[in-house]
Amino acid sequence: MGEPSNIVVRVDHLPPPGPIGQDVYAYPAEALVPLQPGEIRVETLFAAVDAGARAMIDPHAAYPMKLRPGNRVPTSAIVGRVVESRNPAFRDGDHVRAFLTVRQRFLVLDPATPHHDVKRVDPADGPLHLHLGALGMTGFTAWLGITEIGRPHGGETVLVSAAAGAVGSVAGQLAKAAGARVVGIAGGTEKCRAVVERFGFAACVDYKSPDFVAALAEACPDGVDVYFENVGGAVQRAAFGLMNVFGRVVLCGQVSGYSGDGAEGGGPDLMIAIGKRLTLRGYLSSDHLAEFPRFEAEMLQRVRDGSVVPSATITGGLTNLHEAVNSLTGGRNIGQQIHQMAD
Amino acid sequence: MGEPSNIVVRVDHLPPPGPIGQDVYAYPAEALVPLQPGEIRVETLFAAVDAGARAMIDPHAAYPMKLRPGNRVPTSAIVGRVVESRNPAFRDGDHVRAFLTVRQRFLVLDPATPHHDVKRVDPADGPLHLHLGALGMTGFTAWLGITEIGRPHGGETVLVSAAAGAVGSVAGQLAKAAGARVVGIAGGTEKCRAVVERFGFAACVDYKSPDFVAALAEACPDGVDVYFENVGGAVQRAAFGLMNVFGRVVLCGQVSGYSGDGAEGGGPDLMIAIGKRLTLRGYLSSDHLAEFPRFEAEMLQRVRDGSVVPSATITGGLTNLHEAVNSLTGGRNIGQQIHQMAD
Repeated sequence: MGEPSNIVVRVDHLPPPGPIGQDVYAYPAEALVPLQPGEIRVETLFAAVDAGARAMIDPHAAYPMKLRPGNRVPTSAIVGRVVESRNPAFRDGDHVRAFLTVRQRFLVLDPATPHHDVKRVDPADGPLHLHLGALGMTGFTAWLGITEIGRPHGGETVLVSAAAGAVGSVAGQLAKAAGARVVGIAGGTEKCRAVVERFGFAACVDYKSPDFVAALAEACPDGVDVYFENVGGAVQRAAFGLMNVFGRVVLCGQVSGYSGDGAEGGGPDLMIAIGKRLTLRGYLSSDHLAEFPRFEAEMLQRVRDGSVVPSATITGGLTNLHEAVNSLTGGRNIGQQIHQMAD
Repeated sequence: MGEPSNIVVRVDHLPPPGPIGQDVYAYPAEALVPLQPGEIRVETLFAAVDAGARAMIDPHAAYPMKLRPGNRVPTSAIVGRVVESRNPAFRDGDHVRAFLTVRQRFLVLDPATPHHDVKRVDPADGPLHLHLGALGMTGFTAWLGITEIGRPHGGETVLVSAAAGAVGSVAGQLAKAAGARVVGIAGGTEKCRAVVERFGFAACVDYKSPDFVAALAEACPDGVDVYFENVGGAVQRAAFGLMNVFGRVVLCGQVSGYSGDGAEGGGPDLMIAIGKRLTLRGYLSSDHLAEFPRFEAEMLQRVRDGSVVPSATITGGLTNLHEAVNSLTGGRNIGQQIHQMAD
């Protein structure tokens, strides 16, 4: 019956706010293109679904990347299997990880393109999704925020919002490994339990609880020295109220603002930052790619020695990207949200 | 008729919002106490009136220092004349500057007390009020914000809010001396003119103007690399919108929040700080007193060579502190607001 066709994920239309249906994305079959010398063809097995996935298709979201109908849908990272190679360094059946691709069944990759950072991965290191989470861009973002920006000392209190998520769960584990007492904020009993039991945080407070602000203060009896910020809004304001003098705020993300309903009442009153002499620093991991090899070596060691436990929530079906996006925006994921595109 | 009595400034009552009357402060006569060995008695000539003066007597203001009826009224700095000395290093008629005192006609000071930093000043260096402004705590605050926190490079754009004020006017002149292009924000035509003509800023935008946001953007065609923050509120949000990537925000003060009506719609959305990789840093000059001698030597040189022009608005009358406070909160001062307590 001839060779298999490619399946490309494209935006069908920009949906109204809320959970999205299967028809938001189109999955047209398209012909495979022949490989050029040096290229490889990779069948995508897993693709990362990150915090911006919903905001990219929301015309009202405060998010820098915007998609339109017909656009191919990007992903920060994929893991796949080489099915054809014109590159002597890669063979059929090799597993590879690649950054900054689009979502499609078969990807043509030139391993010489720096931003893809195509790399063979060893299934013996752990589940393949590991390379999209703890060892991928979200793990790198967590590592930068802790080791380069927040720099917690032993005995300090580190507070992490979105603590059950891909970035927060790794950030908290790295802070704990640095000797800090780590407190998480997450939504719901199940996620809070995972933050404490699976990721080893000292405590986790449910932001959906009616006594959230009081419970947060109780969980941080010595105040907060480093706040790892993933969410913005009311959670952010509560965290600012607990900051210690000379505290540091790692501005990693503000998921609450991605939804398009603004910053839920504005940012924190920066008077607090003066009285407490806080340093707030925003960063993007793309500015720090030169640090990636150092991160990778350290994180692989941490995964092997168990000081960082990788975690993922996987939803499957090549034409079911919407389910992975809904899982993420509905706050149902623990660890990295992943879309499984093939077995 | 005996020796002159002391006059002590005390809080009579906490006034409702708005300009204050003379009866807000009481000026009781109190007996002079004998000097102990090492002490000096100083007649206060000038006392600084700083941004927090009104907020200290407003029970609803977001300000850390609160006064109650009966309390003596503090000041960040005074200049006076020695009228009696039991300290061999000071003689009658010497002029001195002292930090962190209370407001009264005659002060008993022990020059060995470190936080007062009692220092003889030379009237040949310039008007005596110079030691309360450019060479005093407000000048020190400006110097720290520019040389330690913001660190503008040559060719960068530095934006200064409350640019006609004691801190802002010095901060802008220091940034200009560092090679930056300096733009001010001030309230009203007269103050904007002073910022450009007297303090040498490249431009100054009137925040009371209906087209403020557009005019600010026009005055900063290359964006803003360092924002020196004195005011908060809507001005702060407009400035954040112009920040360049890797910009620095010097969190020096937020006068708009001192008035007790909150931060005028909340702080800036910190999403901006992530996308632009901003660093925001709050500071208090009291943490950095070890740097004061270095500041003093540099600033005295700058005043002498004319690269910093000191400026003050002086209101007089021993029992007229309320006029100085109203001048400051009404935004009528250019440069350091000073209360003249004796001739």
